[in-house]
Amino acid sequence: MDRIYFDNAATTALDPQVLDVMMPFLSEKFGNPSSVYSYGRETKMAIENARKTVARILNAEPGEIFFTSGGTESTNTALNAAIRDLGCRHIITSPLEHHATLHTVEYLAHTGQARLSFVRLTDKGHIDIAHLEELLATSPERTVVTLMHANNEIGNLLKIKAVGDLCEKYDAIFHSDTVQTVGHYPFDLKGLKVHFINGAGHKFHGPKGIGILYVNRNIQIRPYINGGSQERNMRAGTENIYGIVGFARALELATERYEQDSAHVKGLKLYMAEKLREHFPGIIFNGDTFGSSLYTVLNVSFPMTERSELLLFNLDMSGICVSGGSACTSGANSVSHVIKAIHNGMSATMVPIRFSFSRHNTTAQVDMVIEKLKELI
Amino acid sequence: MDRIYFDNAATTALDPQVLDVMMPFLSEKFGNPSSVYSYGRETKMAIENARKTVARILNAEPGEIFFTSGGTESTNTALNAAIRDLGCRHIITSPLEHHATLHTVEYLAHTGQARLSFVRLTDKGHIDIAHLEELLATSPERTVVTLMHANNEIGNLLKIKAVGDLCEKYDAIFHSDTVQTVGHYPFDLKGLKVHFINGAGHKFHGPKGIGILYVNRNIQIRPYINGGSQERNMRAGTENIYGIVGFARALELATERYEQDSAHVKGLKLYMAEKLREHFPGIIFNGDTFGSSLYTVLNVSFPMTERSELLLFNLDMSGICVSGGSACTSGANSVSHVIKAIHNGMSATMVPIRFSFSRHNTTAQVDMVIEKLKELI
Ligand SMILES: Cc1ncc(COP(=O)(O)O)c(C=O)c1O
Ligand SMILES: Cc1ncc(COP(=O)(O)O)c(C=O)c1O
Repeated sequence: MDRIYFDNAATTALDPQVLDVMMPFLSEKFGNPSSVYSYGRETKMAIENARKTVARILNAEPGEIFFTSGGTESTNTALNAAIRDLGCRHIITSPLEHHATLHTVEYLAHTGQARLSFVRLTDKGHIDIAHLEELLATSPERTVVTLMHANNEIGNLLKIKAVGDLCEKYDAIFHSDTVQTVGHYPFDLKGLKVHFINGAGHKFHGPKGIGILYVNRNIQIRPYINGGSQERNMRAGTENIYGIVGFARALELATERYEQDSAHVKGLKLYMAEKLREHFPGIIFNGDTFGSSLYTVLNVSFPMTERSELLLFNLDMSGICVSGGSACTSGANSVSHVIKAIHNGMSATMVPIRFSFSRHNTTAQVDMVIEKLKELI
Repeated sequence: MDRIYFDNAATTALDPQVLDVMMPFLSEKFGNPSSVYSYGRETKMAIENARKTVARILNAEPGEIFFTSGGTESTNTALNAAIRDLGCRHIITSPLEHHATLHTVEYLAHTGQARLSFVRLTDKGHIDIAHLEELLATSPERTVVTLMHANNEIGNLLKIKAVGDLCEKYDAIFHSDTVQTVGHYPFDLKGLKVHFINGAGHKFHGPKGIGILYVNRNIQIRPYINGGSQERNMRAGTENIYGIVGFARALELATERYEQDSAHVKGLKLYMAEKLREHFPGIIFNGDTFGSSLYTVLNVSFPMTERSELLLFNLDMSGICVSGGSACTSGANSVSHVIKAIHNGMSATMVPIRFSFSRHNTTAQVDMVIEKLKELI
């Protein structure tokens, strides 16, 4: 049975071209980049070249890019720094954020380090910008706004430029969780008023265990992980060299292939949506599916029936990989916080499924999944 | 020119047998371990098997082993948890700790979260156990003791069992940085009164970017990196699967090969020490070199001359990789905090060099390095 992998928003296959650039560092080039001898300088150079590549692609300065162990660590670093180092005492976020953000801000609020406000959502699950401005305008404390660029479950995209401009107007710190967009969209960080963004290699055919944190050069923060002087004293720990060179190579490939891949993947999403609408009239699309939304993600709720309740399980039996909630709410058959937040209760009567695509998927696979769904429902 | 790598305490070459078990997870087996479908359960299983392997080898429970991004992150997690979750308000440490520990405790002290005491050292750079007991006995606050099992620069070994017993007597939390001993010595965690230890894969021919934190089952802590429910809610972030399976395999190999490798490596250390003594009568050995010391590390100071000042540089020119201080004090020609702490000032007139060995090194390499040193000094 051939597997059909439609869970690319959770994680993606490592591109063999990425593995190629990692291999030398998994074999002969293992020298410590922090050492004085030339053998370590070789790996140091590889890391600095990777940093330059990432900076160039995101239109940032190399000095603004820090390598971390992943998107989650980057978010923890940024939000803790906003409170600890940048004087923020108020956090504005949304109920749709990833747990990396939500659990971090809940902790900060719970321990009395900051007050927490949630911005209202529009019908389609977008941020209500007017409410965001109201929250900013009435905040007596310095605020950090943390809003994700794209939602990993429903795909909704944030007006990141508009939010950045608002944050600037009210002298707020702006963190955007860009884990679902770095490697999927062009970035121009010099054109955005954002202080922190993050990225995770495994979301765009790069390695797991590696991420980035972008820190705007106008702010000064301290490390979250203390120790050695790696990453210019900003992130201690012996460098994950193969992860770092793999991250940069994956981002480079994603950028080169952006036009063709995004067109292809978007085509799959729209094709699948059309087929679903045709064959399953009772479904609803979660989020702003055909509006401001990731081209990679299609989230659909099926009416709850005895059969649809077993849908995830039966798709799995057929070798089809999809998500019920986000990867993190996983194993749980419980409906995710995101679906709950956009549907106020109605979610209990529907079964949400997220299909998420990559350049490795095909129209034929979509057809096969549709056929299987017809059988199963 | 063939390189001679005598810097194995900084980092080691990945063992090809370790890479072998990582490769499937760097290619076809990329599924998210947190997903519901069987394709993710395959990677989940690999992670849980790795955890069991590590637990078995260290004589711990699988539930006590957490995978992190490295030794540094593990130390940060443990020390922060001791203060935040376990009620410690006093930290006892030593001036010889790795920066992962020192910079973390300095931060905790600086921000008023705990008081900091440094335990006195004996002549040979060991912990003065009587002074440790005095500090514990007179502490009005609950204390966390953080003392490294083996020093990465001079190799001194801690009486970890005795310190654990003392900590138990005074109801203190005990963290030991075991980055230089996990993968190099047998462990029996059920026989030690230690609450936290750590490990880093790249120190024993495993991958970089992966480490462990052992948390004794009698204590309950919260994550340092918040987010998804990975690692049983203790360390969020999509799992570095290849790192995890690589870590376990490297530890397994190290354990299987312990008798032969440790005998071989110890032989190299003693042989080199003997040759050095023979040809460079002015040298001193730093630390308890021939007593309670790592078999992997030989740290020697040469009298300061115009030529010896350039020693690191000239060894590098000859393809010989060694360290001046620890990897972290690196690039810096300045003398490390460890050497300073054990010599009170005398260090200014000497040039310390750390030679550190692995199973890949040979007596012939030692001979070549000795010849080169004779030329250079
Ligand atoms: C939007 C978003 N933010 C953060 C993360 C966390 O990334 P990682 O698990 O790689 O740390 C993810 C992925 O799980 C995500 O989709
Ligand atoms: C004793 C000791 N502790 C902690 C560390 C930190 O380990 P890592 O750099 O892998 O995080 C090292 C290695 O640099 C070490 O030698």
